[in-house]
Amino acid sequence: MNPEVLLSRVRVVLCRPSHPGNIGAAARAMKTMGLSRLYLVTPKQFPDAEADTRATGAVDVLRAATVTATLDEALAGTVFAVALSARQRDLGPAIGAPRETVARLLAEAGLGEVALVFGNETVGLSNEEIFHCQAAVTIPTNPDFSSLNLGSAVQVLSYECRMAAFGEKPPVVAPGVTPFVAPPATNDEVEGLYGHLEAVMTATGFYNPEQPGRLLPKLRRLFGRVRLERDEVNILRGVLASTQVRTGHGRKE
Amino acid sequence: MNPEVLLSRVRVVLCRPSHPGNIGAAARAMKTMGLSRLYLVTPKQFPDAEADTRATGAVDVLRAATVTATLDEALAGTVFAVALSARQRDLGPAIGAPRETVARLLAEAGLGEVALVFGNETVGLSNEEIFHCQAAVTIPTNPDFSSLNLGSAVQVLSYECRMAAFGEKPPVVAPGVTPFVAPPATNDEVEGLYGHLEAVMTATGFYNPEQPGRLLPKLRRLFGRVRLERDEVNILRGVLASTQVRTGHGRKE
Repeated sequence: MNPEVLLSRVRVVLCRPSHPGNIGAAARAMKTMGLSRLYLVTPKQFPDAEADTRATGAVDVLRAATVTATLDEALAGTVFAVALSARQRDLGPAIGAPRETVARLLAEAGLGEVALVFGNETVGLSNEEIFHCQAAVTIPTNPDFSSLNLGSAVQVLSYECRMAAFGEKPPVVAPGVTPFVAPPATNDEVEGLYGHLEAVMTATGFYNPEQPGRLLPKLRRLFGRVRLERDEVNILRGVLASTQVRTGHGRKE
Repeated sequence: MNPEVLLSRVRVVLCRPSHPGNIGAAARAMKTMGLSRLYLVTPKQFPDAEADTRATGAVDVLRAATVTATLDEALAGTVFAVALSARQRDLGPAIGAPRETVARLLAEAGLGEVALVFGNETVGLSNEEIFHCQAAVTIPTNPDFSSLNLGSAVQVLSYECRMAAFGEKPPVVAPGVTPFVAPPATNDEVEGLYGHLEAVMTATGFYNPEQPGRLLPKLRRLFGRVRLERDEVNILRGVLASTQVRTGHGRKE
C-alpha cells in the first residue's frame, strides 16, 4: 500500500493534555512526518494561541483536530490502537519496543484506521485507557531521566511511523499474530461487545458493578489479544442476545 | 564497549542557535536518551531563563555546556563528526539515513569522541561548517512540511543514538569503510593539516586566497573520505614541512 495512505490512517490521540504548547508541538511533529489526524480527549485548553505558536506551519493540523469527551470516541472506527506507557500494567497489553510496535501499527493500517495513544504530561495514561488499546509501547530512555516531553514522544513515534511506512520492506503484522481473514472489528464494535457482555453479566448476577474486581480488565485482555473480526463480534453478541431472550433479562423485553 | 560509555562520547553541537528555548529543549532531549555533552557555537543568547525552563530536569546539561567561538573548537579532540543537513551540498559528504549514520557514529565512538552537528534554526549549517564533518545525515520528513524543530531533530537523533548503543548487535563501522589500524587523527589534527596545506599552497602560488575557487573543499572532501590516522597526518605534515624548507617558504625560515 502507498506509504502516504498508510500514514494518513494513523491517528495521534492525546488524552487530557494539560499544556496547549504541547498540543502545538505534537501537531508540528506529526506534520513533519506526514501524519495529519490529531484527536484530543478533553484537553485542558484548546484551541489556544500558545498551541498555534508552537505548531508554526502545522496550524492546519490543529484546525482539523477532533476534540472528544472520551477515548472511545477518539478510537471510533479504528482497528488497532497502541498506548504509550512507561511501565507494564497489570493485565495490560505487553509493552513492545518502538520500532517493532510501530511496524505492526503500520501493518495494521493496511487493514483500517489505527491510533497512537498518548497520556497526560504528568500522569500518563490511566489503566482504563490502556485497556482500550491492543498493544503498548515504551520509548527507551535514560533510567536516571526519563522525562520525555509529550511533543518529543509524538516526534519519535511519528518518525518511526514514517521510517516504517517508507522502509525497504513493507510493514507486516508481527510473526505469531494471526492475520485477519475477514474484516477486523473496529474499536466501537468491540466496545459494543464489552458493553453488551457487561450488561448480560450484570443482569445474571455474574458481575457486580458495586464490586467490579478484575473481571472486566481480564475480558478486555483476552479479546484484545485475539483480535476480533467483525463477524466474530456479531456472533458473540448474538450469543449474548440469545441468553437475554432466554433469561428474560436485557433489551429484548 | 559499555553503551553508557559510548553515549558519553557523543557531543551535540548546536551552531549559532537563535532561540534559547531550543537550547533547553535540546538539553532535555539529550538527557532523556543518556547524552550529556552539549556544545554551543556562538549562541545568540545563553545562558537564558527560557532555556532553563524548557530544559526542566536537564538544567545540569545546560550548566555543563561548552560555549565556543568556532565549530572547530567544539570539535576539538573528536575523531568523527556528522552534520545534519536537509540537502546534499556540492562537494560535501554524502548524506545518509539516520539509522545507518548514527550506527556508524556509535561505532566511531568506540575509537574516540564523536559529534552530531546541528545548524541554525532558519539557515541550517553553512557549507563551510559541513565541510568540517566527515558524514552528513538527513531526517526523512514530509516533503510538503519539512520544518523539523531543532529540539525535535536533536530528540530523533539522540533517540537513534540510544537505540544503536543498546541495540542487539554492537555498532560496527559500515561495510566498505576501512577500519583504523592505528589511532585516528582528531579534528584539530586534521584541521592543522588543512591549515598547513593551505599555507604551503599559498606560498607556492598554487592556491590564491583572493580567488579560492573549489580547491579547499575538494581537499577536505578527499581527506574526509579517507579517515586519516594520526601517523598519516604527521607524515603529510612532514612532507609539507620538507617542501617549505626546500622552497624557502613557510615557517622553517
